[in-house]
Amino acid sequence: MRHPQLNADGKLQHLLTIEGLPREMIHHILDTAASFVGVSDREVKKVPLLRGKSVFNLFFENSTRTRTTFEIAAKRLSADVLNLNITTSSASKGESLLDTIDNLSAMHADMFVVRHASSGAPYLIAEHLNRIRGPHVNVINAGDGRHAHPTQGLLDMYTIRHFKQDFTRLRVAVIGDILHSRVARSDIHALTTLGVPEVRAIAPYTLLPSGIEQMGVRVFTDMREGLRDVDVIIMLRLQNERMRGALLPSAQEYFKHYGLTAEKLALAKPDAIVMHPGPMNRGVEIDSSVADGAQSVILEQVTFGIAVRMAVMTILAAN
Amino acid sequence: MRHPQLNADGKLQHLLTIEGLPREMIHHILDTAASFVGVSDREVKKVPLLRGKSVFNLFFENSTRTRTTFEIAAKRLSADVLNLNITTSSASKGESLLDTIDNLSAMHADMFVVRHASSGAPYLIAEHLNRIRGPHVNVINAGDGRHAHPTQGLLDMYTIRHFKQDFTRLRVAVIGDILHSRVARSDIHALTTLGVPEVRAIAPYTLLPSGIEQMGVRVFTDMREGLRDVDVIIMLRLQNERMRGALLPSAQEYFKHYGLTAEKLALAKPDAIVMHPGPMNRGVEIDSSVADGAQSVILEQVTFGIAVRMAVMTILAAN
Amino acid sequence: MRHPQLNADGKLQHLLTIEGLPREMIHHILDTAASFVGVSDREVKKVPLLRGKSVFNLFFENSTRTRTTFEIAAKRLSADVLNLNITTSSASKGESLLDTIDNLSAMHADMFVVRHASSGAPYLIAEHLNRIRGPHVNVINAGDGRHAHPTQGLLDMYTIRHFKQDFTRLRVAVIGDILHSRVARSDIHALTTLGVPEVRAIAPYTLLPSGIEQMGVRVFTDMREGLRDVDVIIMLRLQNERMRGALLPSAQEYFKHYGLTAEKLALAKPDAIVMHPGPMNRGVEIDSSVADGAQSVILEQVTFGIAVRMAVMTILAAN
Repeated sequence: MRHPQLNADGKLQHLLTIEGLPREMIHHILDTAASFVGVSDREVKKVPLLRGKSVFNLFFENSTRTRTTFEIAAKRLSADVLNLNITTSSASKGESLLDTIDNLSAMHADMFVVRHASSGAPYLIAEHLNRIRGPHVNVINAGDGRHAHPTQGLLDMYTIRHFKQDFTRLRVAVIGDILHSRVARSDIHALTTLGVPEVRAIAPYTLLPSGIEQMGVRVFTDMREGLRDVDVIIMLRLQNERMRGALLPSAQEYFKHYGLTAEKLALAKPDAIVMHPGPMNRGVEIDSSVADGAQSVILEQVTFGIAVRMAVMTILAAN
Repeated sequence: MRHPQLNADGKLQHLLTIEGLPREMIHHILDTAASFVGVSDREVKKVPLLRGKSVFNLFFENSTRTRTTFEIAAKRLSADVLNLNITTSSASKGESLLDTIDNLSAMHADMFVVRHASSGAPYLIAEHLNRIRGPHVNVINAGDGRHAHPTQGLLDMYTIRHFKQDFTRLRVAVIGDILHSRVARSDIHALTTLGVPEVRAIAPYTLLPSGIEQMGVRVFTDMREGLRDVDVIIMLRLQNERMRGALLPSAQEYFKHYGLTAEKLALAKPDAIVMHPGPMNRGVEIDSSVADGAQSVILEQVTFGIAVRMAVMTILAAN
Repeated sequence: MRHPQLNADGKLQHLLTIEGLPREMIHHILDTAASFVGVSDREVKKVPLLRGKSVFNLFFENSTRTRTTFEIAAKRLSADVLNLNITTSSASKGESLLDTIDNLSAMHADMFVVRHASSGAPYLIAEHLNRIRGPHVNVINAGDGRHAHPTQGLLDMYTIRHFKQDFTRLRVAVIGDILHSRVARSDIHALTTLGVPEVRAIAPYTLLPSGIEQMGVRVFTDMREGLRDVDVIIMLRLQNERMRGALLPSAQEYFKHYGLTAEKLALAKPDAIVMHPGPMNRGVEIDSSVADGAQSVILEQVTFGIAVRMAVMTILAAN
């Protein structure tokens, strides 16, 4: 059975997850992104690759930041962009998810960028669209529940490749609230696919998903131990709501054990890079001196993220 | 006295209502829409007819779905589109409706698409703009109170003409909450103008406006009786809030008597088409098997709706 | 020390305040605006001066009206516009203001239009951007707290120059809630810079900032006295929330003493013009007969406002 994100020719029609994506396909996306990095630097930041296409940003969960990155990417490709915040819309009128999709699809949408609180919602949408529209429409998962955030995963890989070139010689640590993080899941799949020999997951027990070892990672609950000699550090956002629950004692306590400080960073390789998907909680999972320090590549991630999203949109539209 | 939607030459300057619109004018809009149906299928879905025009979507009542259809139509005509959700804006600062219009008009808006909870609001706006700006600005009623929703009426006529060609041989049934429906009113005016010999209104007594017979319709309270031998079925959305009031016993009870099921549909002509303006309440006014069945043209309505809105915008801008 | 809104060549890089702006610079902006007034009248209301630039409307305080004027101005210059309502966004996720700016900046924003409830926020943003991005990005203050609203000040000057030509022969009265008005502050700075020999501030004691005389104005608490022989009347909006506090007795009382009526207007010069930044409270600070009367240029202000904003954007982008 073919993966729902691939078309009959085995090409990428939707981007739903990094899991199962072949290594060459990931590199092809990163190579294409490299050709777009320059566009955002130009005087006229536009290329006509999606001119006359209608891209729908379908956000069932509010996220101005993520929506903005896709909106910029689509506009720089000259697409027409329509922003639909569905929480305040038809959903409240009791229309089903698939009726909403049917409707927008009947308006000849070319591409849906979907953010949804439920894991799997973009799959449901993609499979439904395959059934009713065939190969002529594309879905990009912009984050679904705890499951996946593939464009974030890809931009993280772009960033690592940019700074470290060869994935096959790296030690990479993913640190923090892995349990609730779609970013962590996407990153781990990408890193193992790209041949990173050692991926470490560092978190307190309460924030580790059960069975995490089966994803091919080494687990550490002691951050100092886990950081030793790593080349790449991927910090995760700690959502405030976790603190209110039973999972964590307090932000101060968390910072003490799992916050990235200059002192802890010194345990990694001297040229290790520090990444974070944003928005950051300074003083919770990361110290300001590190976030703004020389090893931080957090803003480069954002810049590369536009190019990666332009690449994904272009590749999907062409397939 | 000339109708406020016509200019001095008797041409359409605004689209406020279908009531009183001559048959030829309706056909002219539908013919123009036909020329736009292909545009949305193209690789580059854009024509430059409204390039450099400013279209303001002025929604005093939230409706992402309707706003989106106008936004797409305007963007495919290459207009600049500005979305103003007025409920959260100046209205809350106590500015009057006409001061808001004066202001936006002073920014050289070319076209206003107005959705308002009060019947007549788009008329007020059009008459005011005629006074202060003369014939250089257009208003499209995107739904006002219980009064009218003319672009929905026109897209319904487009759909009927597409599937049934000749209006003068049809039996058409409009079914459901006619009392509160601006769609029903617009459809009935259009159908009688276009020469449909028998328009039926099917609803419980409590959801029929008084004097409905004077609109030229035959009234039925028994759905089975009313459906017999009709060519076209237009289902109406039952708004949930009606159920809470005294007008209806329950959704289950409503569905039993006035929900369109396969069994009831069999009473109509075998080639009858089923329409619905959306969003649907499956299991309340329509059964899923019918909504998704072979006779349903509900999604075609949406597709044609874009073309009809492009046609209306183009015709108004040209007049 | 150079003003944070000027670049190393002494040219305008940001527009943060009118205070300290040289007279020639103001006239240069107004002259440039004059060349844009015609654009909004054309069939195709677009010029390609900002094509491919990304303009971010960053509104930390909701203002559909102001946001719309900047959005239209940017679209008529062919820029890509992104609207970010930050109150409902990352801010609620606890991200700091400067982290938000860093992020958007990393997406290669070319221009930020900033509205913020705190005085000085746009300065903070501009200085931060100077540090991290150098001279390649522009900030326009679209209203910060009680401090400044420079584009409103400039469009007011444009309006006065349009109707009265020579600033050096005028008496101008600014009337109303001067204490809380960023518009008043911007206007007073502009008027004195442009050589208006007599600027009057008319308000009840409770709505006058302490030390107002040091801005070079004559203070009146009696409106009739203050209006005598003025050429230009700038009314200010009275925010409803003032009435609830201890500052004012009631709207009726305020109108009696400080509302502009035809009878009070007669005390000014017969060709005096009446201005208001909007939205108006009719019957509170201004009578409808005056707002809609022959001497009112309130809607001309709005029209000129688009041209002035186009001018500011073009000048900043070119410097």
